[in-house]
Amino acid sequence: MAYETIKYDVVEQILTITLNRPEKLNALTATMKRELIDAFDRADKDDDVRAIIVTGQGRAFCAGADLSRGADSFDIDAWHGPMKRLSDGTVDYSNPELRDSGGQLTLRIFECLKPIIAAVNGPAVGIGLTMQLPMDIRLASETARFGFVFSQRGIVPEAASSWFLPHIVGVAQALEWCYSGRVFPADEALAGRLVSKVVPPDRLLSTARALAREIVEKTSPVSIALIRQMMWRMLGADHPMEAHKIDSRASYSLGRSSDAKEGVTAFLEKRPALFKSKVSTDMPDYFPWWAEREYK
Amino acid sequence: MAYETIKYDVVEQILTITLNRPEKLNALTATMKRELIDAFDRADKDDDVRAIIVTGQGRAFCAGADLSRGADSFDIDAWHGPMKRLSDGTVDYSNPELRDSGGQLTLRIFECLKPIIAAVNGPAVGIGLTMQLPMDIRLASETARFGFVFSQRGIVPEAASSWFLPHIVGVAQALEWCYSGRVFPADEALAGRLVSKVVPPDRLLSTARALAREIVEKTSPVSIALIRQMMWRMLGADHPMEAHKIDSRASYSLGRSSDAKEGVTAFLEKRPALFKSKVSTDMPDYFPWWAEREYK
Amino acid sequence: MAYETIKYDVVEQILTITLNRPEKLNALTATMKRELIDAFDRADKDDDVRAIIVTGQGRAFCAGADLSRGADSFDIDAWHGPMKRLSDGTVDYSNPELRDSGGQLTLRIFECLKPIIAAVNGPAVGIGLTMQLPMDIRLASETARFGFVFSQRGIVPEAASSWFLPHIVGVAQALEWCYSGRVFPADEALAGRLVSKVVPPDRLLSTARALAREIVEKTSPVSIALIRQMMWRMLGADHPMEAHKIDSRASYSLGRSSDAKEGVTAFLEKRPALFKSKVSTDMPDYFPWWAEREYK
Repeated sequence: MAYETIKYDVVEQILTITLNRPEKLNALTATMKRELIDAFDRADKDDDVRAIIVTGQGRAFCAGADLSRGADSFDIDAWHGPMKRLSDGTVDYSNPELRDSGGQLTLRIFECLKPIIAAVNGPAVGIGLTMQLPMDIRLASETARFGFVFSQRGIVPEAASSWFLPHIVGVAQALEWCYSGRVFPADEALAGRLVSKVVPPDRLLSTARALAREIVEKTSPVSIALIRQMMWRMLGADHPMEAHKIDSRASYSLGRSSDAKEGVTAFLEKRPALFKSKVSTDMPDYFPWWAEREYK
Repeated sequence: MAYETIKYDVVEQILTITLNRPEKLNALTATMKRELIDAFDRADKDDDVRAIIVTGQGRAFCAGADLSRGADSFDIDAWHGPMKRLSDGTVDYSNPELRDSGGQLTLRIFECLKPIIAAVNGPAVGIGLTMQLPMDIRLASETARFGFVFSQRGIVPEAASSWFLPHIVGVAQALEWCYSGRVFPADEALAGRLVSKVVPPDRLLSTARALAREIVEKTSPVSIALIRQMMWRMLGADHPMEAHKIDSRASYSLGRSSDAKEGVTAFLEKRPALFKSKVSTDMPDYFPWWAEREYK
Repeated sequence: MAYETIKYDVVEQILTITLNRPEKLNALTATMKRELIDAFDRADKDDDVRAIIVTGQGRAFCAGADLSRGADSFDIDAWHGPMKRLSDGTVDYSNPELRDSGGQLTLRIFECLKPIIAAVNGPAVGIGLTMQLPMDIRLASETARFGFVFSQRGIVPEAASSWFLPHIVGVAQALEWCYSGRVFPADEALAGRLVSKVVPPDRLLSTARALAREIVEKTSPVSIALIRQMMWRMLGADHPMEAHKIDSRASYSLGRSSDAKEGVTAFLEKRPALFKSKVSTDMPDYFPWWAEREYK
């Protein structure tokens, strides 16, 4: 599949996805959303992809939703014709055609089996920001700008950000940013724990790659895929016993694996480990341990 | 309704609620609790209230529960006569007369549709502090003092603070403060993320008002009411799909609204938006999306 | 019970548990796990224990799991013989013999009724680090080192750390540390909110003891036991009403207690309170308010 709106480049087992409509500040279109979902599908299936960096072409990361339809930009009926109604005249909200487009993207990212680093090179507002929340680590250039601008547009934060954001930065900080809708600089994003590091523009991608390389070179692919899902899934669990159940399955399954034997042996021999597991074929039999939540 | 223990002042769409028993350091009484609940009811119904500031008259924010009954201050039987018992002699805990008074207040604040800023002007201990937790943003004067003093009184943190506090400042910080019960200064509250800013005493209210004004002047009332409930409710949700369901309803309902059309148009025309929605009449048809949790 | 691998010392109502295999950097063995669980059982039953400090003998806190079985260190079949299989040939994961050993320890610590302070005196990696997460407060010596090294060994974080860690430090920081598996210094642990204070090595235990003493001298034992469980349990609750239900029971039960009457009286008389409640006999009738989660 050739992409129109993004670039997909794998170098030394690191995939870089670049939002690539620089003349439009990489504003998200329906095509870009589909291509991003496809890129994550492809990355999950490709054992040569061990880590993912997401960044933007040109001076912006992503300026938000494409507003080329003007006032009707967020009016689904205006785009697709009137949505299905129930016999009492109300909208049928279980209709999947109504699904928030940003949430379809972030829920796909949530399920990803590879670690994801957002390298925020410039302005990131609206969906350009909320799409980053299920990415694991956010690094910002000093030129990055952030804005949960929804309240200033008469809409609300989407892309499941009402779940992601307070779980990442705390509810007070989440509300303060989302109430005002103002655009804020990288330093404020760092202080508020939205990003974990701010670097000069010319060091952004090299910093992201160094972080990715550390994972690629030293760790087990199956360990990383499990860790990603364990941490994100348990964030919503109500009791540590839920983690213990999964840990017990992991400790049995992985403990017998060739990666574990190599990991311990290499450690004892004080040499780098050579892990051979593949996410495509070697995920343990208890994975996935959840039934994916349905839209309704 | 005239209030005895609080002041209720609306200026330029900002309501300031002032705890007003300065001679008693604004200690909370049953009357003050009732009046506070009434004030939040009134604010939610009044479209002229777009943001709420809560502060204290005189040198304290609130010194905690009124202790004028001395040793019996927390003894419900001593106040109201012996509570109803079940046939086996145990207390009937489902009896709503037993409900924690502080929790009745904080659960009411939790349901509020307007953004709330606590402007902590002086000492805030016990219920004087836990009542602030469901307020969205806490600003402190340099003269503020904080104390979860319950363990030093032989009781436990109330007002649902065992839910709010670890969700706001993390469980380790919550436990450290609640174990010792000691009173700590504004700087420690800032470092521990209990408050988001510390300012000189004479700038406290102006800082709170500037924050409120930013919301009042630039954002959609319906957006703000939804954002408040989305962020707080999803803090307890176990999966981002729960947010996606609500986002999808919002994206359809709000996307067609006049506020969204005005928001996008104003943005494209580089002019301030003029939002006309009202919380009293324009909340979307899917709101509220939850069944309120019952006491039992 | 005499312990082989730990020390158990009670001085002035403060229990210090010392991991005591210094020649092996206190690496965790099956014996040490059993002894630690026994020590927490004993501490909970002993009213003379009001606070618990956990530290390591010698230069390490705990270097992780004992790896003396080399490549088979994590292979349960190699240790215990092949685990029970179901008729379809898959492993019976509900078999409690498969339970992760670290999780058995951390779930026991989770249920503890006394406040726990980890005094991290040196390297703490793998289970040497994840065992600290259900301890309430972590203090580090400048010589402490931390590592969630699992991904570099071909396994995954255990001991229910996928629940504890993102709830303590946030999911982005949790993933960053667990992905790379690298060892990091005390200052980074402080910046990432894994520990609450870093002190010179010779001040570590005195700082921990000062914190413990503040609790022992000024607070009600029953209040502290309830606070510990309230904060940890409500971290996983989905709505503040769940806290309100427990608060209401507490406000009635404790409000009538002699500790509450003493607490208020002492406060009004401006003298230290003398609390007489005991965890062994004076926990309120609604405690525990939960049914403990089962392994399956």
